Amino acid sequence: MNHGTALLWKRRALSSLSATRRGLPKEKMTENGVMSRAKVLTIDTINPTVKKVEYAVRGPIVQRAVELERELSQGMKKPFAEVIKANIGDAHAMGQQPITFFRQVLALCSYPELLSDNTFPEDAKSRACRILQSCGGHSMGSYSASQGIDSVRKDVARYIERRDGGVPCDPDDIYLTTGASDGIVTMLKLLVSGEGATRTGVMISIPQYPLYSAALAELGAVQINYYLNEDKCWSMDIPELQRALDEAREYCNPRALCIINPGNPTGQVQSRECIEDVIRFAAKERLFLMADEVYQDNVYADGCQFHSFKKVLFEMGPEYSETVELASFHSTSKCYMGECGFRGGYMEIINMDNEVKAQLTKLVSVRLCPPVPGQALMDLVVNPPQPGEPSYDSFIKERTATLSALAEKAKLTEQVLNTVQGISCNPVQGAMYSFPRITIPEKAVKEATEQGQQPDMFYCMKMLEETGICLVPGSGFGQKDGTYHFRMTILPPTDKLKILLDKVKEFHQKFTQQYS
Amino acid sequence: MNHGTALLWKRRALSSLSATRRGLPKEKMTENGVMSRAKVLTIDTINPTVKKVEYAVRGPIVQRAVELERELSQGMKKPFAEVIKANIGDAHAMGQQPITFFRQVLALCSYPELLSDNTFPEDAKSRACRILQSCGGHSMGSYSASQGIDSVRKDVARYIERRDGGVPCDPDDIYLTTGASDGIVTMLKLLVSGEGATRTGVMISIPQYPLYSAALAELGAVQINYYLNEDKCWSMDIPELQRALDEAREYCNPRALCIINPGNPTGQVQSRECIEDVIRFAAKERLFLMADEVYQDNVYADGCQFHSFKKVLFEMGPEYSETVELASFHSTSKCYMGECGFRGGYMEIINMDNEVKAQLTKLVSVRLCPPVPGQALMDLVVNPPQPGEPSYDSFIKERTATLSALAEKAKLTEQVLNTVQGISCNPVQGAMYSFPRITIPEKAVKEATEQGQQPDMFYCMKMLEETGICLVPGSGFGQKDGTYHFRMTILPPTDKLKILLDKVKEFHQKFTQQYS
Repeated sequence: MNHGTALLWKRRALSSLSATRRGLPKEKMTENGVMSRAKVLTIDTINPTVKKVEYAVRGPIVQRAVELERELSQGMKKPFAEVIKANIGDAHAMGQQPITFFRQVLALCSYPELLSDNTFPEDAKSRACRILQSCGGHSMGSYSASQGIDSVRKDVARYIERRDGGVPCDPDDIYLTTGASDGIVTMLKLLVSGEGATRTGVMISIPQYPLYSAALAELGAVQINYYLNEDKCWSMDIPELQRALDEAREYCNPRALCIINPGNPTGQVQSRECIEDVIRFAAKERLFLMADEVYQDNVYADGCQFHSFKKVLFEMGPEYSETVELASFHSTSKCYMGECGFRGGYMEIINMDNEVKAQLTKLVSVRLCPPVPGQALMDLVVNPPQPGEPSYDSFIKERTATLSALAEKAKLTEQVLNTVQGISCNPVQGAMYSFPRITIPEKAVKEATEQGQQPDMFYCMKMLEETGICLVPGSGFGQKDGTYHFRMTILPPTDKLKILLDKVKEFHQKFTQQYS
Repeated sequence: MNHGTALLWKRRALSSLSATRRGLPKEKMTENGVMSRAKVLTIDTINPTVKKVEYAVRGPIVQRAVELERELSQGMKKPFAEVIKANIGDAHAMGQQPITFFRQVLALCSYPELLSDNTFPEDAKSRACRILQSCGGHSMGSYSASQGIDSVRKDVARYIERRDGGVPCDPDDIYLTTGASDGIVTMLKLLVSGEGATRTGVMISIPQYPLYSAALAELGAVQINYYLNEDKCWSMDIPELQRALDEAREYCNPRALCIINPGNPTGQVQSRECIEDVIRFAAKERLFLMADEVYQDNVYADGCQFHSFKKVLFEMGPEYSETVELASFHSTSKCYMGECGFRGGYMEIINMDNEVKAQLTKLVSVRLCPPVPGQALMDLVVNPPQPGEPSYDSFIKERTATLSALAEKAKLTEQVLNTVQGISCNPVQGAMYSFPRITIPEKAVKEATEQGQQPDMFYCMKMLEETGICLVPGSGFGQKDGTYHFRMTILPPTDKLKILLDKVKEFHQKFTQQYS
């Protein structure tokens, strides 16, 4: 665009605006005699990128579920007695109990007078003292450093070193965050630049967790879809990554590759070999890697194991470990603790340019600091009771019970769903969800299309209305054209999960019959 | 820009990129034989709006303060024994004690086993039970609704009604937030649209709280400065608002007007009359009002009173109350509680278009929910112990003690600073800061300029190095050209504040002498 064009464009814009901008505000008299002014902020004048944001996990189906709950509580008759929200990985809401030790320490930090209460175990007290000593004025009510409390970041670094078999971790590379979402959005924000064909593109898996598509829409970045291979248990294929990248290079500037492992919504656990391939691909194609590893303790299937991207990167030697830029994300919300409400999390950044890091530190300082109780909780997650400490046995018992139950429920879900004709479910190797493929009869697809709905949204809405079960349609996460899925958490207590699965089965059979 | 121009522009962009985008990544061999790849994310390729962000409250001077603290702790000799961070409104870090009742309830919510502990007062227990009953699975570890816990929003609405003498408040208009900052940034995000001469402009006071300039820079919106009148105790002048607006209309589309009352960094409390004038101005000029009212309980000066924008708006009759769009922000971080670390807050939106509200609700759902402990705390702030409840007396005693001490310190600060020749300080009518004007000798201005520093940054850096006192230079908040200021919190305990003020006095005299 040359200078002349720019001027012309500016003049046009000015002239089209002059009526409203130079004149008086638009006003008209309403019936009751009040001058009604046109609103400043309307759907036509709102930030257009905000309009593009979608977030299925809390979309229309969940709003309807909340309405149904209200109607039930008002005594309205429904074909079910309760709404079961299997739409979101919200462990405590599903009855999972918090880890006692964590909550004891949080109570002590909240109200330090309890430190003289002899019913609290000594290790909880000493942990609370240590956290409080790192807080300004020894209070969780103080702001922390914007990057997070120093001692917590040190504990995170030591945790990562233990997890990754000794690969070194610098606390300076750790940023505590308000849940993992905050870290992911912040990293994406740094990466977005350019306009038109030079606009930043970010590769995300399809199916994906819709935080990614929502954040990219809001930032005005280009979403580049690569498909997971459903036939190979949702694994990543390098040729598919290459296809997506090559196509995207025609219209944007691909700069980052996001991976969710263990997978959300798809529940797969990527193999070490696959991760190596992905790292090689990112190195070759100069892509910034973003590894969403919030389900790192949620691995259930035999033969599956969590491999952090960082560990694999460092084991591949300096050609990779000294060059590939990586951000990895963790959270207090998942794994065995499921403490979503505290909004704790961290990110580790590897090989980030020092000037960029300074910009990141500046950027996070504007929001002052992540919530301190969430930081305290993150500290407990990375530094739980040790052998010999009074709370060790009960901690291990509670953690094991939760993770075993999840493993059992993962298997149960897969098994039951696969008994239903028209439902086919990959093993839930990890994370907290099953993402089965469902066959939707032609007639139902037609009816949905006529109603302007995605067929799996139509299916899930019907299930909600008839059974009270709230699932998220696959279309909210993305899926191959012509395939349909839903995401269901495996979190309900085993007894309830069995009932839920039976209801899903029954509904699917009825639905199929109705539309055949 | 016509189609041909767009194509040409796209082709140029593609061709300039083709070397890196089509060829292999840039590589070179380093000394130790590792192929060094150019980084994906560098200061040249980072999001350009991020680079523009500045945030003085945690800027270079605070980084130096942290370094000095470290050096002191390592035994290095300094001309002072401790660093006093008077740069930020961080009450607990300055030794202010939390409200006992609030922390008791938070401890009970964190570890509900304590509900059977008889040392806790009954009202704290019943309040904790009520909060937990509103949480999924009765746990603060569950996600809440994205807009915030229903019962908390109801309590907020009742609080606002009491505060505003019965003006009605709909809980549906309340959004709980992660501190006030979160709400402010979210509202600004909704308002930003257009390009070039149609780009959204937002009016902010100068001096301002730098969250505003930082958020506007990040969002790529146009910052429109209106100056507060220092000679009239930092009041708002309508002619000055008009001047700023008229000038801005030449190059952007002004859509919102932000007010901080009580003022940060300037400590003024706006009169009812002034607020009326501002509302009339916003109505006439069709501006969305954003009222930052986080210091609503921090009013000290005789004859001053906090008037909420909402109350004044409603008292001005339907011509205003039914048309002017307003968002008002509050927080758990300030007032008498000072619970910054919990990141609690709310915003109330008035006269927002329904479609816009749906977009807002969708937007906040992407981040799932504000931290639940912060929501719980917000609930306690808006619903504290009532007369007749066991904790009422101690609550009132603690609150009064904190607010009286603040009032005393506000007066003390003004008085001592005004005894110094070359420092002139408006009354600290409210909030938590003094923002005195300082005379900086020509010689010092020259030396600062030679070093590429703002003169008041030069002054504050010197003060930090010589006295250990960390203040924020006025240039970080904006000020009239040729005037210099600093922001200092009044939060240190009275004894310490006295020492601090004496040191400031002594430093200023020495500095003036040195550069005269």
